[in-house]
Amino acid sequence: MKIARTKQLKEKPDYSKLGFGKYFTDHMIVMDYVNGKWNELEIVAYSQFSFDPSMNAMHYGQGIFDGLKAYANTNGEIQLFRPTENLNRFNRSAARLCMPEIDIDVVLRGLKKLIDIDREWLPKEDGTSIYIRPTMLGTEEALGVHPSKSYRFFIILSPVASYYANGLEPVKILVEEKLVRAVTGGTGNIKCMGNYAASLLAGARANEKGYAQVLWLDAYEHKYAEEVGAMNIFFVIDGIVKTPQLLGSILPGITRDSVIALLKDEGVPIEETRISIEEVVSAHKNGKLDEVFGSGTAAVISPVGVLGYNGVDLIINNNKMGKLSAGLYKKLTDIQYGRSQDKFGWIEKI
Amino acid sequence: MKIARTKQLKEKPDYSKLGFGKYFTDHMIVMDYVNGKWNELEIVAYSQFSFDPSMNAMHYGQGIFDGLKAYANTNGEIQLFRPTENLNRFNRSAARLCMPEIDIDVVLRGLKKLIDIDREWLPKEDGTSIYIRPTMLGTEEALGVHPSKSYRFFIILSPVASYYANGLEPVKILVEEKLVRAVTGGTGNIKCMGNYAASLLAGARANEKGYAQVLWLDAYEHKYAEEVGAMNIFFVIDGIVKTPQLLGSILPGITRDSVIALLKDEGVPIEETRISIEEVVSAHKNGKLDEVFGSGTAAVISPVGVLGYNGVDLIINNNKMGKLSAGLYKKLTDIQYGRSQDKFGWIEKI
Repeated sequence: MKIARTKQLKEKPDYSKLGFGKYFTDHMIVMDYVNGKWNELEIVAYSQFSFDPSMNAMHYGQGIFDGLKAYANTNGEIQLFRPTENLNRFNRSAARLCMPEIDIDVVLRGLKKLIDIDREWLPKEDGTSIYIRPTMLGTEEALGVHPSKSYRFFIILSPVASYYANGLEPVKILVEEKLVRAVTGGTGNIKCMGNYAASLLAGARANEKGYAQVLWLDAYEHKYAEEVGAMNIFFVIDGIVKTPQLLGSILPGITRDSVIALLKDEGVPIEETRISIEEVVSAHKNGKLDEVFGSGTAAVISPVGVLGYNGVDLIINNNKMGKLSAGLYKKLTDIQYGRSQDKFGWIEKI
Repeated sequence: MKIARTKQLKEKPDYSKLGFGKYFTDHMIVMDYVNGKWNELEIVAYSQFSFDPSMNAMHYGQGIFDGLKAYANTNGEIQLFRPTENLNRFNRSAARLCMPEIDIDVVLRGLKKLIDIDREWLPKEDGTSIYIRPTMLGTEEALGVHPSKSYRFFIILSPVASYYANGLEPVKILVEEKLVRAVTGGTGNIKCMGNYAASLLAGARANEKGYAQVLWLDAYEHKYAEEVGAMNIFFVIDGIVKTPQLLGSILPGITRDSVIALLKDEGVPIEETRISIEEVVSAHKNGKLDEVFGSGTAAVISPVGVLGYNGVDLIINNNKMGKLSAGLYKKLTDIQYGRSQDKFGWIEKI
């Protein structure tokens, strides 16, 4: 890899007001794909890109990303949580959009070096981390729908607080009954840019009604829970944890996978299945809807306190974070921040 | 509007080898949306954009476009074909992705001025034109899934030949039986960037098998014809023209609409309906599949000579352009190039 350090370090932001994805560190990774192969990975100063107005990704959306985090552990070291899983998923996203795959060893080595160079940016406050955003864009300068002949891969780093401003306070989620996020055979199971733009309208309408996000239903019958868009979803019904199974339209979340592994390890019944919204409503009516929570890299575990459906707000667990959600949050973050033993082999130190 | 002409005119390409979308004229339109309103429209030298790596559109795909053409008419004038329809559709795309609408009068006036300034670029050869690409991108510099607070609208111009290298030669189309382009409730009925990236894999696989493009089927049953991706599709079955009705997952093509208007005007039976692929296969078997053709701004009318489905190639009209397709092509292009009277009011001169 080539390293060209910046001559002018940026001023750090007020770490008590980090928010999410607003500030970026001094350096970034850039690696271009030209003439059928990847150029050498470079670590350079964080700076603007210069793109032609005809650039492929700006017209035809050939762009993918992923998201993972680096954490300060209790020994003052920096550690990553399952980074290879994120990069493997990144390559699956690439394949679905006819983009070249990255060499995961090369990129992971580069990423560790990048974080090491920018280690002063790592926030130390509880729940904070460095959010890592690998991205790839088609850069061919021509119109016409076809896979780009050239690509830019890059990684930027952002010191972040919790994804939701209110941390672990339960969120209000609205069940979206008309608009659709994804359908099997489409791109709902990868992280491509188009998925997120398509989700904005439902989100904006939900925000207007006072909800933080929407719960998407399946495209066929508008009946089965899919995901929240920024999170996978879990329902705890009568002591059994249920999460929508992966049928091609849901993002296979790495936090989702970790939650399932933790629950299995503890002997908590967990089912990957189809969950109809009627089953959820009925469980709530019968006092059996114990907890609902989302899982994701950005939010880790986010309790759902209110689920709006068909004009009615279901209040879940008195709008408080439940025991199971709280336990999972603690177990996951204890591993991520190095406060407990990593018996799953999820941690990679820098 | 502000106009800042370039000091250095570019060299024109070889007009006998134009292809599609490879060359761009000397100027472009740029108009930024900041603090809740559009800045003044500017005509500036065609040049690279400088974008932050965290730019919204590069991560979350908040980007839309449209496509229309300017033609040299027989009097040496330049004319546009239904430009307001394209800009109206652009605004519908904007609304679906939570982006601000453009002022169509302002943009159309700017577009006419831009084309006038770059009029030397208009190719004169048969079937050539200036392809016009209005685009809008979310430009906010922050991660996190939400509508961008700022936007860039721009228009670039490209002198083009026919979209397909072989002009009016019939194309081979493969029916895609697994992957899905769009579903009602999604974004299939607008021109957003994500739709096109999602279509690449099916197209690439079809190319490998010798087909130019795919015919998409509905997401629910993989049974009903939708569109080709770059074109709407028409089937002529036993003298009746049929095209898939607009149920929310198909792009409402302006050429599609013009074809329907022309057919109605001529008293040719035309139905907007659901067309199952089995109906098409059966019509072919019984010698009733007279013609199949696509319609679109880029290709105008493109005859389908071979339709591959379920391992069998249906040869349509002896793999030749049919009478009805040829007639529509002539009528449309006669209006577009000013060779015949524009009784529909589709033409706007510059």
